[in-house]
Amino acid sequence: MLKDKLENVRKSCPLVHNITNYVTVNDCANTLLACGGSPIMADDINEAADITSICGGLNINIGTLNQRTIPSMFAAGKKANECGHPVVLDPVGAGASDLRTRTARELMSQIRFTAIRGNMSEIKALALGSGDTKGVDADVADAVTEETLDAAVDFVKKFAAATGAVIAVTGAIDIVASADKAYVIRGGHPMMSRITGTGCMLSAMTAAYLTANPDCPLEAAAAAVCAMGLCGQRAHARLTERDGNATYRNYIIDEICQLSGSVLEREAVYEVR
Amino acid sequence: MLKDKLENVRKSCPLVHNITNYVTVNDCANTLLACGGSPIMADDINEAADITSICGGLNINIGTLNQRTIPSMFAAGKKANECGHPVVLDPVGAGASDLRTRTARELMSQIRFTAIRGNMSEIKALALGSGDTKGVDADVADAVTEETLDAAVDFVKKFAAATGAVIAVTGAIDIVASADKAYVIRGGHPMMSRITGTGCMLSAMTAAYLTANPDCPLEAAAAAVCAMGLCGQRAHARLTERDGNATYRNYIIDEICQLSGSVLEREAVYEVR
Amino acid sequence: MLKDKLENVRKSCPLVHNITNYVTVNDCANTLLACGGSPIMADDINEAADITSICGGLNINIGTLNQRTIPSMFAAGKKANECGHPVVLDPVGAGASDLRTRTARELMSQIRFTAIRGNMSEIKALALGSGDTKGVDADVADAVTEETLDAAVDFVKKFAAATGAVIAVTGAIDIVASADKAYVIRGGHPMMSRITGTGCMLSAMTAAYLTANPDCPLEAAAAAVCAMGLCGQRAHARLTERDGNATYRNYIIDEICQLSGSVLEREAVYEVR
Repeated sequence: MLKDKLENVRKSCPLVHNITNYVTVNDCANTLLACGGSPIMADDINEAADITSICGGLNINIGTLNQRTIPSMFAAGKKANECGHPVVLDPVGAGASDLRTRTARELMSQIRFTAIRGNMSEIKALALGSGDTKGVDADVADAVTEETLDAAVDFVKKFAAATGAVIAVTGAIDIVASADKAYVIRGGHPMMSRITGTGCMLSAMTAAYLTANPDCPLEAAAAAVCAMGLCGQRAHARLTERDGNATYRNYIIDEICQLSGSVLEREAVYEVR
Repeated sequence: MLKDKLENVRKSCPLVHNITNYVTVNDCANTLLACGGSPIMADDINEAADITSICGGLNINIGTLNQRTIPSMFAAGKKANECGHPVVLDPVGAGASDLRTRTARELMSQIRFTAIRGNMSEIKALALGSGDTKGVDADVADAVTEETLDAAVDFVKKFAAATGAVIAVTGAIDIVASADKAYVIRGGHPMMSRITGTGCMLSAMTAAYLTANPDCPLEAAAAAVCAMGLCGQRAHARLTERDGNATYRNYIIDEICQLSGSVLEREAVYEVR
Repeated sequence: MLKDKLENVRKSCPLVHNITNYVTVNDCANTLLACGGSPIMADDINEAADITSICGGLNINIGTLNQRTIPSMFAAGKKANECGHPVVLDPVGAGASDLRTRTARELMSQIRFTAIRGNMSEIKALALGSGDTKGVDADVADAVTEETLDAAVDFVKKFAAATGAVIAVTGAIDIVASADKAYVIRGGHPMMSRITGTGCMLSAMTAAYLTANPDCPLEAAAAAVCAMGLCGQRAHARLTERDGNATYRNYIIDEICQLSGSVLEREAVYEVR
């Protein structure tokens, strides 16, 4: 299932338009190149739609949204819908400010997203219109554990049904779901939360996977989430005693660069619910 | 003295709002995560004050200040003052342009800063209203040496008295002072000046230390400066012959990630004047 | 020829003003520090010309151009011309959107550039007013090969004659030319295209080389291109089996940091046509 999703990215080298935050943008670009895609960043209203139209997919990340770039997100998203390109939303910090929650919800009302990826606090903020997101991290009370997993899967499926998008909620346990099918993915490493931007990198990579696998968005998104988690584990295994989060970040991107379809197929751990 | 300052950061995981430049923002975020804090970057006027209010501390860095973000700096700073949160100013390049000098001084007139961290040229520009800052680096004539140390300590204490802020002047010898007490810190490595953003990273980390140690801002800022210098030394010791400034940057953040309170207490070199 | 060009950078530590994209800006800053220069980034219209005037050179990169920064590019460029400072244009993505093509050409009409560096698709878009740039990468059809080299050298020389600028076209084979002389440089490694920003880094470094070698812009630009290619090769030789594009990026900057004039002179491979 996973192998061909990855290989389709490497074969087709999807060009992904990113309107994303300036905190993790470099890591997003290098992640896209690592996985086999090609990035372009363009956020001015006078070119946003033009750039979207020459790309294969679009990734909208609201991490440092602002008055200048918000209209570009709408313009690019609408153009991507017109062109039939996949569009990813990463609602960074939804729930942390009214501007973020409101903008993310407004984007959802005007644009059909192929996939929405966030932590549980962000996704709840989108679903409920308010939230307790702790900055850009999930609130502890929102963590998905073995005890809350059934309820969480149910919630994510319902939100997928309501939005028509594949919903990817990432955390200690990841859930990637459409209205009637969910991939529960156990991967990654807790230290990934000590790197800025692993979520942003995953959203960018998800856009590449969706673009390269247009007929199966649920599986494509699940494959991207599996790949990120696996690379997080493999990179962690490579760390020596003196290494910290900066080296870890570099090794994760390195692993994405080296990951083969066979390794992904063999080592990723997931179940379908 | 230093041990508990660091451990308080790791225990309380302070959420720090950063309005900072896009050059070193990723390193600032990873440094905050490395030291035990949590970063959020938000610079739009429509959310700046909201984000400040959900955070514990604020870091204002004027490295790429612009018409869009300057009003957000004022709004966030005023909100932090209202909330009683610590606020750090990093006057990057003050003295290099009228806009920078003027904006930094105007920020100081409208916002009570808990700490101001810069190189000697920048701090002089704030104190005198003009300067000879060489871009974003200190002018050689402003370097603090053993010969000029007494006069420099005196100057820094006076500026602390005039502003009511802890003043941290970093360079070959660091001075962190309130009106009547100064920590003179000998740490770091000359090669740190060949990495962009070690100053920015330190300012972000200082905001985390101030937030986690609200009752002793002078000691908290001194501990952050000691930690940065020590990590600069330890990271340098790890370099091999082929490593340059990129690997050095990564190793410094790695060392911040690994630094324990006991090592900081035992190895930092400072005196009180 | 190359040795003294590099050594002049290390000796004079040229201060370079960059108006550049937020994707690769950190790598540009660390590259400038690595090669012996000093970076300052400033893109607000209220300080752009002031910052230009205290610097020695200017680097304009349109990678994330926008309504706010485009006027700053014009203001800085005109001030650099007034001051007699070298100015580099990196037309990132020219040909990929009308905004990029038009802005780059308008910059060329109002500012005298000392050097213009891009991939072949971008340079063709500047020359012809339209193009097939694949996002920010060159179109495959535009690749310079041994078969198309003669025609490419001729085209680049003619464009240099038409613009009065040194033209540097980088790719599998690099061409750096004035109206009547071209350096054909064989260096680098194909994996460099899997790192975001090697072109941006080279443009920033070229600005430093031009600033430190004001009397020979063609040779200075050729030396910068040789240095980048050589560092790309040396960094690649250092990679182990598990390393990917993130480590490769770091090693390239490390190599720039370590590169000596003698090694550059001895190992760079170029011919004059």
